Amino acid sequence: MIFSSKLIEDAVQEFSKLPGIGKKTALRMVLHLLKQQPHEVTHFTEALARMRQEVRFCNECHNVSDSEICTLCANPGRNRAQVCVVENIRDVIAIESTQQYNGLYHVLGGILSPLDGIGPEQLEIASLVQRVKDKQISELIMALSPTIEGDTTVYYISRQLKETPVEITTIARGIAFGGELEYADEMTLARSIAKRLPIENYVNTK
Amino acid sequence: MIFSSKLIEDAVQEFSKLPGIGKKTALRMVLHLLKQQPHEVTHFTEALARMRQEVRFCNECHNVSDSEICTLCANPGRNRAQVCVVENIRDVIAIESTQQYNGLYHVLGGILSPLDGIGPEQLEIASLVQRVKDKQISELIMALSPTIEGDTTVYYISRQLKETPVEITTIARGIAFGGELEYADEMTLARSIAKRLPIENYVNTK
Repeated sequence: MIFSSKLIEDAVQEFSKLPGIGKKTALRMVLHLLKQQPHEVTHFTEALARMRQEVRFCNECHNVSDSEICTLCANPGRNRAQVCVVENIRDVIAIESTQQYNGLYHVLGGILSPLDGIGPEQLEIASLVQRVKDKQISELIMALSPTIEGDTTVYYISRQLKETPVEITTIARGIAFGGELEYADEMTLARSIAKRLPIENYVNTK
Repeated sequence: MIFSSKLIEDAVQEFSKLPGIGKKTALRMVLHLLKQQPHEVTHFTEALARMRQEVRFCNECHNVSDSEICTLCANPGRNRAQVCVVENIRDVIAIESTQQYNGLYHVLGGILSPLDGIGPEQLEIASLVQRVKDKQISELIMALSPTIEGDTTVYYISRQLKETPVEITTIARGIAFGGELEYADEMTLARSIAKRLPIENYVNTK
């Protein structure tokens, strides 16, 4: 692409560094911003700059936060004996959006993956073990990816907590609501049969 | 979506105002920026802010420019007797990227569309007519959309220049290279037959 303006070219260049944004989409964004009022563009750039500079990570659960302790950990209405262990911030947002969970979280920052050089030291596992011991946590809900790495991480954490009186559970796997049986993969279908629920239980938990 | 950080929420909100960006994509962008080094995010926001504040429009052709006259109009190597009339900046970039055109441009800023309240006064038509008269322009190449609005605009401009000795041409319409005949719409196919070229001409212009 040939631009007659270096300013436009630089902006397109920067935009196209974002994930999933090619040169053409980047140009579309830049020309959109060019049509906006200057103060609207200022709002945009300042929101991003402030976010990057000021966002912190919660000392308790390692979720993103505007202060030392995030709003979830600081909320006295939440069940402090239950902790949901997730890989990243996106998972916290996804679970919060269901509005069905009232406990706390623990963001690991990834899962064990020796091939990518991610061992227990790279993750917030030691702080999780310490937190379970210190804070009288009764249940740890593992909400990690259903992959070999995810299962390994669950196993590793459960080994670390062998001597600690905490119940470790994992979120249910099975056929999604609205999912068609014939399109489900064999492993999910096999597991959903093995872990079948009595009807009254199903109705209650729905 | 429920966020535990107002900073993240604001950034996602601002990103999702961009065309074609929903909440989930916006979150992906924000979390990507969060993983970058602070100076990289500063590069990004500064490139956008500078672009919006400093970009100008060329006094001659109304293309985006870093100075009063754009690099295309200021280039002494270009054919100043030929002007290609386009709707917007994106069209200039598209034609420049072919590297086949060596004349100047004139960006109208849209096409005549009475239903949307766009009349000749909203477009750079008067300045085009003035430019043709003042600058000894011998050919005006109309590269507008092949729609009723585009054709109306071509007709309107040609009426304004009836008394002026300038040749008005339009870019060729026809079957695209690599396009299959059977999938071409009837109007394009009919026109490409009506405007057929002798073989030697075809070979020369290719």
